[in-house]
Parts: sequence; structure tokens; C-alpha cells
Amino acid sequence: MTAPATLPALPTTSDVEDAARRLQGLAVRTPLLASQMLDEKLGGRLLIKAEPLQITGSFKFRGACNRISRLDAEERRRGIVAFSSGNHAQAAAWAATLHGAPAVIVMPSDAPAIKIANTRAYGAEVVLYDRYKESREDIARRFSVERGMTLVPPFDDPYIISGQGTVGLEVAAQCAERDVTPDAIVAPASGGGLISGIALAIEDRLPGCDVHCAEPHRFDDIALSLQAGQIRSHDGTGNTICDALMAPRPGDITFGVMSTHVTSAVSVTDAEVETAIATAFHYFKLVVEPGGAAALASVLCGKVPCAGRTVVVVASGGNIDASLYAAIIGRTPPL
Amino acid sequence: MTAPATLPALPTTSDVEDAARRLQGLAVRTPLLASQMLDEKLGGRLLIKAEPLQITGSFKFRGACNRISRLDAEERRRGIVAFSSGNHAQAAAWAATLHGAPAVIVMPSDAPAIKIANTRAYGAEVVLYDRYKESREDIARRFSVERGMTLVPPFDDPYIISGQGTVGLEVAAQCAERDVTPDAIVAPASGGGLISGIALAIEDRLPGCDVHCAEPHRFDDIALSLQAGQIRSHDGTGNTICDALMAPRPGDITFGVMSTHVTSAVSVTDAEVETAIATAFHYFKLVVEPGGAAALASVLCGKVPCAGRTVVVVASGGNIDASLYAAIIGRTPPL
Repeated sequence: MTAPATLPALPTTSDVEDAARRLQGLAVRTPLLASQMLDEKLGGRLLIKAEPLQITGSFKFRGACNRISRLDAEERRRGIVAFSSGNHAQAAAWAATLHGAPAVIVMPSDAPAIKIANTRAYGAEVVLYDRYKESREDIARRFSVERGMTLVPPFDDPYIISGQGTVGLEVAAQCAERDVTPDAIVAPASGGGLISGIALAIEDRLPGCDVHCAEPHRFDDIALSLQAGQIRSHDGTGNTICDALMAPRPGDITFGVMSTHVTSAVSVTDAEVETAIATAFHYFKLVVEPGGAAALASVLCGKVPCAGRTVVVVASGGNIDASLYAAIIGRTPPL
Repeated sequence: MTAPATLPALPTTSDVEDAARRLQGLAVRTPLLASQMLDEKLGGRLLIKAEPLQITGSFKFRGACNRISRLDAEERRRGIVAFSSGNHAQAAAWAATLHGAPAVIVMPSDAPAIKIANTRAYGAEVVLYDRYKESREDIARRFSVERGMTLVPPFDDPYIISGQGTVGLEVAAQCAERDVTPDAIVAPASGGGLISGIALAIEDRLPGCDVHCAEPHRFDDIALSLQAGQIRSHDGTGNTICDALMAPRPGDITFGVMSTHVTSAVSVTDAEVETAIATAFHYFKLVVEPGGAAALASVLCGKVPCAGRTVVVVASGGNIDASLYAAIIGRTPPL
């Protein structure tokens, strides 16, 4: 597999600032939304960073675009390959198209239909695989070897992490604009790219702010790893509605950042996630997909306390099939 | 009925700029969203101003807040009264609470449940009436006389129009930031407050830009009035899914502005509105209510052409009951 051109060690705050300059005019500065009615129910102040409004419908565009912007002319010509259950797929596809690079995206055949269709619409060649029988890494490696394509990994890459971290830079700036000092920030986590980037971005800007990540129940590899002090996989049994949060283990780089920068990892149930989706619909008029609602869920159910505090929640994506969304908001009351 | 303290004549661009200063830090500068995938389908460039993300879930907060900010101390103490099917109700209720003024809101008993519940949650006393048997004006007048409350009208007031016009100021600034010159802007219209304010805001800033408004089929009083050169009512028969766009006729002030500033009024069917709601869900992750989707509908169905052009659409509100929203996106494919 072709290694990225230059791999810095653990990324830093200044890598995140550098990514922000690369993304200027390409990524959306998503709004930080508030609801007085919800705040009254919570007895605290909740601010929600609306990444479903990001290009390609999730924060993933930030990292993919930062990574692909570093390719040289020859690497662009040969193109990129990525594997993803959906949001990174769409993001890498569109970022590649923007940079004039062909893209092959390896996706599980049971990924949400909207994510597969969109990845194609963003200009990529989609290769489907059976997630129970085939190795997506092997398939990606084949394209890498045969076509000389550069792998754009979903999270364990300094440029990816730095790109996702621009969420944190914007949150810090938006809090400063409204003269608010958050007590905590919470983001959904799968491999840990987003929360690692955010932690690096805010360590100097919001020094007293706790950093939490939210994982699906039973897919709590980050909690297990932080507890053990070394990388652990989740047990992989059961299922979760959060299709975007099923990575088996944190990455080497993301674990390196998280082990020193993340306060805690909390896990949320499918029912708690559905309440969060309905709450985002009702109070924020924002479509949030299951994985994207995990952090909001952790606050609404009290696992990350909000009463008497100010908490920033990242809603990380909004790519959900209409039928599932209709079913959830049809049966689930908001908080 | 207590008349507003000072009534300027027709509002001007500088009234809109003044409103923008009043709203700073109170109203949200909502994002102007784009979708490359949708643009490809349209063969043009569509930008959507996301007012469902505004405080109280619609643009109406802008006008109500501007109007109520002009009350003197004694007027605030006595409070305000408003009548509305829902979005102005919520907006006036919350703007009054922000300014420490009690509020009575007169609402039809068949308004969407979410709008009635929210109006109460925003701190107002809600008085329900039967829209087929009672006059909301008479009920509002009673509160005005008995309690000395100031009427905050839904659209035909210079301060209301100027407040809504801040949508247009933001659109002009956001287009300039991305170096885009729109060929047309389209907004939903009921009494005409929003489109009048926008027209005033952009007349110097976007001089070549056409200004269209979108009305529900059969509730096309603005089209009839523009055509006749004088105020006309729609025939009032039939029904529409756009509960927010049922005003019987334009106002005297809004008609004065529209007759010289609005290029055309187009009408859209319920089916076209449902497609627009599903399209906003799919491409923009934005919850839009039926009335709020009328302008988007007019572009998607080609009544306002977008091919080869740049068109700004205002999505004006997102207050829709979950059951109706689930039904619409469950049965309706996006464009």
C-alpha cells in the first residue's frame, strides 16, 4: 500500500490551524445552534455544532479534503482509494473530485443506500464487499498496488485528524464570539479521528474544557482502551443503529492523542440515540443520523451532565435513509 | 387597538440596516447552504437560506424582535398581543419574553400542535379561537383595549417588514463572501412581509437580481393583486398543506413595496411542496415545514428557472409536526 508522502508524528494544534487554512472556502463553517426551550428542560446550556450541514453531510469532508490537498500532481493523477461504511466514502469521493483525482471507494454492501448512491454521485467508483466474508483492507490494497492509488484512511492519519480538528477551532471561535466558556465538549467516536482533532484544537483555546466522546453500547472500544491504558477492541457482538460508529478499535495515532487528551468515553443505547434524533428534529430542525446523534444522546440521558453547565455537542453527520428517519421520528418523542 | 408608537411611511433599505443592528446577538445569522449534487440535477446553482435554524424555527423572529424592541418601558409593562397561525406566534412570544413583556397570542384551534405548544413554552398566554366562527382581530382588540397591550401585527408594519428584510442583507453579504451574483431570489409569501423586506434590503446590494415570491395554489392573493395593480383576495376555497401561507390578502404596506419591487409571484401545488420538503431533507439535512418549502418548490418544478443561473431560495421555517413530516418524507422521493 502506498504510504502517505510525508507522515509527521502526532499532530499538533498548529497542524489543525494549517488544515483550517487549506479548507477555507471549501468546507462550510457550520453554525453552533442553541434552543432556549431545550436549555430550560436541561437546566443548562447546550450548544450543537451542526455538521450535517457540512459538504457531503458530515464532518468527514474536513479530514479527507485536508489529506487529499497534500497529494502531488503525480499522486493526484493516479488517484485515491478509501474504505468506509459511508460518510468517509462520500467525503473522500467529493474531495478527490474537487482535486481532480480519480477515486475508488470500498464500501460494505449493507451500507445505507443513501451513502452508496451519494458516493457514486460524488464521482467515485464504488466497490462493494461482504463485511462478513471479505477484507476491505485487502481489496483496497489491490487497488493501491495495481493502480498506484494513495490510501486515504478513515481516521488514523495526521492530516485526517488535523482536518477533523477544524470543528474544534470553529467551536472555540464561535464560543468566543458569544462570550461563552464551555465546561465540556462531546463528539461521537468510532476510530477517534474527530475527537482527537477537536482535543488538539481546543487545548490552548479552551483550556479548562472537558473532552468526552460518545460510543454506541457494546461498540465501546475507546472506553475499553482508555481504561486499559492500551488499545483494545470491542467485543464485536450485537448490533447498533449507529452504522457510522462501528470501527473495531481506535487507531495508533488517535489512541496516542486520546490517552492524554480525552476526559472520558461514554456509551449510549439505540433508544437514547433515537431520542436524540427526535430532539434534534424538534428543537433544532436538523436531520441527524444515528451515529451523528451519539454525543447529543449522551447529554440528553445525563451521562454527560449539562445541568448548571455549558456543554457543546457535535452532531457529526446527517446521512440517513428517509425510511429509517421517518420511522424514528414517527415513533419517538423528543426530550 | 393601541397603535404602534411611531409609524414611518414605507420602510427603506436604511430601516432594514437599522433592524440588523437591533437584532445583532439576538437573531441567528443563518447559513446559506449549497449542494453540488442538487446543482448537477438542476444544471444551475441553487443556494438555500436556512431560516428553520433561526430562533423559534422561522424568520418571523426577526420582525417580531425588531418591532418589540421599539416599545417604551410602559408599553413593555403592559405587554403585547398578536394573532397568528403559528410562526409569528412563537416569534412574538419569545421576543416579548426576551424584552420582559407579557404576551397574549391568539391562535386558531386547528394550528399545528407543535406551534401551539411552543408558543406556550416561549412564555405566552395562548388564546385559541375557531377560525370558521370567530374573528381573531376582535379577540386581539379585546386584549388591546382591556389590558392596553400593543398589537404586533404579523406582516403589515414597517418594523416587521424591516426585521424580515435582514434575511436579504445576510443573503447579499453571504453571496459577496463567496463571490457569487445571484440572478434571482425567491421567498415564500403569505402577507408579503418577508419578500417586501428582502426586496428593500437587496435593491442597492444586488441591483440586477429578480425578486420572486411563491404562494400555495389557490392562495395566490399576491399574484392576483400584482396582476390587478391593486389589492385582491384569493378565493379562499380549497385547502393547502402550507398552513403558514393562508393570509387572505397582502397588506397595504407590503403591497406598496411589492407592486414596485417584486418581479413575479408563482404558485405551487401541495405535491410540489412535498417534493421540496423531501429534497431539503435529502440534500441539505434541513427540516423545512410546508409553507417554508414553497420557494424551493417553485425552483425544483421549474416555475422559477435555475438552469444556467444562480438562484437563492429562502427556506423560511421548520415548525412541522413529526407525524406529518414522517409521512411526507416516507412517501416522497427527493428531486
